[in-house]
Amino acid sequence: MQVGFIGLGAMGDPMARNLAAAGLLAALWNRSRAKAEPLSAQLGVPIADDPAALARAVDCVLLSLSADEDLLQVIDRMRAGLHADMLVVDTSTVGADTAREASRRLASYGAHFLDAPVSGGVEGARNGSLVMMVGGEPAQFERVRPLLGAVAAHIVHMGPVGNGQITKAVNQIMAAGINQAVTEALAFGEAAGLNMDQAIDVIGGGAAANWFLSNRGRSMLQRDFSPRFKVALHHKDLNICRRMAEALTSTEIRLPIVEMTLIHYRRLIEAGYADEDISALYRQKCALFGE
Amino acid sequence: MQVGFIGLGAMGDPMARNLAAAGLLAALWNRSRAKAEPLSAQLGVPIADDPAALARAVDCVLLSLSADEDLLQVIDRMRAGLHADMLVVDTSTVGADTAREASRRLASYGAHFLDAPVSGGVEGARNGSLVMMVGGEPAQFERVRPLLGAVAAHIVHMGPVGNGQITKAVNQIMAAGINQAVTEALAFGEAAGLNMDQAIDVIGGGAAANWFLSNRGRSMLQRDFSPRFKVALHHKDLNICRRMAEALTSTEIRLPIVEMTLIHYRRLIEAGYADEDISALYRQKCALFGE
Repeated sequence: MQVGFIGLGAMGDPMARNLAAAGLLAALWNRSRAKAEPLSAQLGVPIADDPAALARAVDCVLLSLSADEDLLQVIDRMRAGLHADMLVVDTSTVGADTAREASRRLASYGAHFLDAPVSGGVEGARNGSLVMMVGGEPAQFERVRPLLGAVAAHIVHMGPVGNGQITKAVNQIMAAGINQAVTEALAFGEAAGLNMDQAIDVIGGGAAANWFLSNRGRSMLQRDFSPRFKVALHHKDLNICRRMAEALTSTEIRLPIVEMTLIHYRRLIEAGYADEDISALYRQKCALFGE
Repeated sequence: MQVGFIGLGAMGDPMARNLAAAGLLAALWNRSRAKAEPLSAQLGVPIADDPAALARAVDCVLLSLSADEDLLQVIDRMRAGLHADMLVVDTSTVGADTAREASRRLASYGAHFLDAPVSGGVEGARNGSLVMMVGGEPAQFERVRPLLGAVAAHIVHMGPVGNGQITKAVNQIMAAGINQAVTEALAFGEAAGLNMDQAIDVIGGGAAANWFLSNRGRSMLQRDFSPRFKVALHHKDLNICRRMAEALTSTEIRLPIVEMTLIHYRRLIEAGYADEDISALYRQKCALFGE
């Protein structure tokens, strides 16, 4: 199966490299051509003239984009090159409704769509250890599963188109609450003068144990907020979660922790911390203790 | 070292049993004598006439009580039996200020105090796998450490008197936020019609992984809220956390997640769910989706 890749950002670049290393990558395209050129030269993989030309040349297109609008635009720009039974796999985080719309647009050309958002950050994309949550027809999932093994370590089929994005939303909602939990608790402990290194050890062995505490607890105490998962991206994802929740019910507030986190992240973004790691929420929690 | 135990509630009863099994328990006392009698008969350990008589008969008293007032009252009722170099170890969750006050009152009799709150619930108390966070003089900690091994598996000295309680507070604040995170995310996923068993597996393998999801996620989806850690107890503990945070700074809201959780728990208590597990917060999150 010949694969093309569109969207060579922080996540797309390492995923494209892993596909190339597996001998699967036939063509590249990126909105800014200049950004694609060094990678093209390095991997010996050509840059397609436009998305349609890329679609024409391959059996499967992987996408790694930012916003919901980008996904639908790229699908529309592939139109002239779409062919029957070809497969488009979107690894971006977008709304489930957008994924379903993308699938409908492709279906009218006989092409198939899978929503396949990933979790695991840039490190995960680099070393191929991503978790991938996939929505779409089972037959299409089985067809592309071996190929996806080049970019992700844990690949789960969650149901029809859109269910990959719903699962990702559950993950992002939980990550928001855990960020609130860990930063609030550690800011209190630090303000109270505790030996925080010991405290992280003890608490990490009990009922409040969590990945974020173990992997971000010590760096946030050292005020190291170098980005592993950027505030601006989680903010974008939580807005998608809010919209998806609004579509489910007419009650006023469905996701109180998400609403609170959106406010906190907006303040961080306004203060110039959009590109810091989400653990920078620790700045605000410390500020509540007058730091 | 001869040990006495005061407070034979849900946590105290199994801790006393473990001390007796290790051959360390010399005397018991409980506010309601009737509750102590079956245990006394079963273990062959006498019930002291009052806290003073118990203090007089032993080198070390372990306490397992409910509220801050109870601790100071019991200390006052031990007064006539206190003797130099004896040790009082309090496993209750109370404020750090109350622990320091208890220590001061004992010091005037030459007696020592350790605050030693535990984490791990009734199961942990039963099988001796509790985590214990201890504050007090290092020499006293070393003296009593072997004995504490009969009731807890992981025992950490966190600094001077009060620091055990501060560490416990950090743990309880984090547990509140994680409960919010997991219940909110799972309620969204269930309302969206996801296969939640699969979702828990996938998310439990990524950056949102946490103990509470793995150990309470499936039971809450089945509406099984049988108590492992009761809403009423976490509510009490979070009020202690709030008071401890107020003592640290004059800003208005220091622990926003704790404030939100206190409101949610109060609603659960008013609705008759005080004795359910804290995962009953899931009821409220589902209600936000109109369930």
